[in-house]
Amino acid sequence: MKLTILGCYSATPRALNNTTAQVLEMNNHMFLIDCGEGTQVELRRHKIKFNRIKHIFISHLHGDHFFGLVGLISTFRLLTREADLHIYGPKGIKEVVTLQMRLADSWTNYNLYFHELTSKESELIFEDDKVQVYTIPLEHRVYANGYLFKEKPGDRKLDVKAAKSANINKAYFKKLKQGFDVENEDGEIIPNTSVTLDPKKPKSYAFCSDTVYKETIVPIIEGVDVLYHESTFLDKHEHLAEKTKHSTATQAAKIAKSAHVGTLLLGHYSTRYDSIDLFKKEAETVFKSVKLSKDGRVFNFS
Amino acid sequence: MKLTILGCYSATPRALNNTTAQVLEMNNHMFLIDCGEGTQVELRRHKIKFNRIKHIFISHLHGDHFFGLVGLISTFRLLTREADLHIYGPKGIKEVVTLQMRLADSWTNYNLYFHELTSKESELIFEDDKVQVYTIPLEHRVYANGYLFKEKPGDRKLDVKAAKSANINKAYFKKLKQGFDVENEDGEIIPNTSVTLDPKKPKSYAFCSDTVYKETIVPIIEGVDVLYHESTFLDKHEHLAEKTKHSTATQAAKIAKSAHVGTLLLGHYSTRYDSIDLFKKEAETVFKSVKLSKDGRVFNFS
Repeated sequence: MKLTILGCYSATPRALNNTTAQVLEMNNHMFLIDCGEGTQVELRRHKIKFNRIKHIFISHLHGDHFFGLVGLISTFRLLTREADLHIYGPKGIKEVVTLQMRLADSWTNYNLYFHELTSKESELIFEDDKVQVYTIPLEHRVYANGYLFKEKPGDRKLDVKAAKSANINKAYFKKLKQGFDVENEDGEIIPNTSVTLDPKKPKSYAFCSDTVYKETIVPIIEGVDVLYHESTFLDKHEHLAEKTKHSTATQAAKIAKSAHVGTLLLGHYSTRYDSIDLFKKEAETVFKSVKLSKDGRVFNFS
Repeated sequence: MKLTILGCYSATPRALNNTTAQVLEMNNHMFLIDCGEGTQVELRRHKIKFNRIKHIFISHLHGDHFFGLVGLISTFRLLTREADLHIYGPKGIKEVVTLQMRLADSWTNYNLYFHELTSKESELIFEDDKVQVYTIPLEHRVYANGYLFKEKPGDRKLDVKAAKSANINKAYFKKLKQGFDVENEDGEIIPNTSVTLDPKKPKSYAFCSDTVYKETIVPIIEGVDVLYHESTFLDKHEHLAEKTKHSTATQAAKIAKSAHVGTLLLGHYSTRYDSIDLFKKEAETVFKSVKLSKDGRVFNFS
């Protein structure tokens, strides 16, 4: 599981501060999460192949999270993309994109699917044989969702040597990987765990931005390996966080602690502060495993 | 008259190639012409005060000319702008912007006026005591206009010494500046030109992008000091220019020559070529005063 932060600042893009966009690499997928203005340039800068992005998840329709979307869709067309593209985001997103395509008289040459969200409950919105994606209902000034990305448990690892010693016919190896006990050539039942090893622990990542401090997300994100939780403000501006429906670093840490997550990743910083280290310092008073997202930073959570 | 090129490449923004946006400073106005994605960041980079921009002219609704507009409007709001903002552009531009504001539930705290264009004839769309702006109907894949910015002739310069020697009462100085002959204290008519000097020659700038080679614009831009004319392609790709309704550098030069302009400024280059110097070389075979626009380049046409 690899996460590339393309942008992690709030409000408006500046020369040295990109607005929200990140790429999560999970099981051969490249999931683009949010798409602030200029995201396509950051994707190029990081040499991320446009064609590998097949799913884009937009948290909410504030500009710093989606003003780069229509440009990206449009660039995909110019580059004669053929791969399907799926967009997940609040209702209205389809109208914005298609209106601009209509006015520009430029339609995509690839299949573009919109999955518009309206539910206030967590929903499974994507699934294949290896990964599931759920929404995380957030509370912000407009309808907003976080996203939970979960690897499915993989097959058990076969201990080939042990299986052969146990005189199991090769034809049963697939069943073994799937966790079943099997009969060997001598008619004995071989317990699965004696010839297989546990699979790699499946990874999970939760993206929560933008949101006010909201404890109801805790059961949804319980035990995730990595939680990205917005921390627009420091403690001294908690009143602003409440007013604008954002969170402080301490509040993000409280959520991380309650949900027993592995690592808390902070982001969506207001640019009013001298240093983003202050966010880490405050969060660490509540929760010990805190990392700072930073434009251009790449995290390998393996 | 000062022109700052924020971006001058076609199609899609890249790390080193911004799409179209430029700022024309004319008689205390800061006119923003086109607004590709990322324009707000380029404005910051050039330390152009956001509040000084009161008029934005959008040529057409292709993304590389206007995907930065809604972000800019939105940033103006976050910065608690108070100055009025006027947007000129093709019909549809208001719907795009207001839809996105509605979905984000964020309205401007300043007055935002849309001036939607539909005419296929040149129109006067802005005028004050010093400047006029006209549309230049272009021909592209979608409805498009260039813009002609013209300083009005200023007042004549008073030769105070000569006026006093001619025994003219100060009360008449204003009339002299306006070009009238006046009567002196001795009852004689004093010809205006004997006590005044010609005003500075008014400047003019024509922006023409995107367009196929179109001779009907020549009378509109006749004699302008500076003509920015798109040159997406080189001669060898003239067939592509025709097909995509763009121009070659040579075609831009032909227009410049026919219209007797002072300087031809090329731009809207395709990124397929090794060097933009090739555009200049080709244009110079037809017209001698050619300059290349380049991202970040500032031209003082005084």
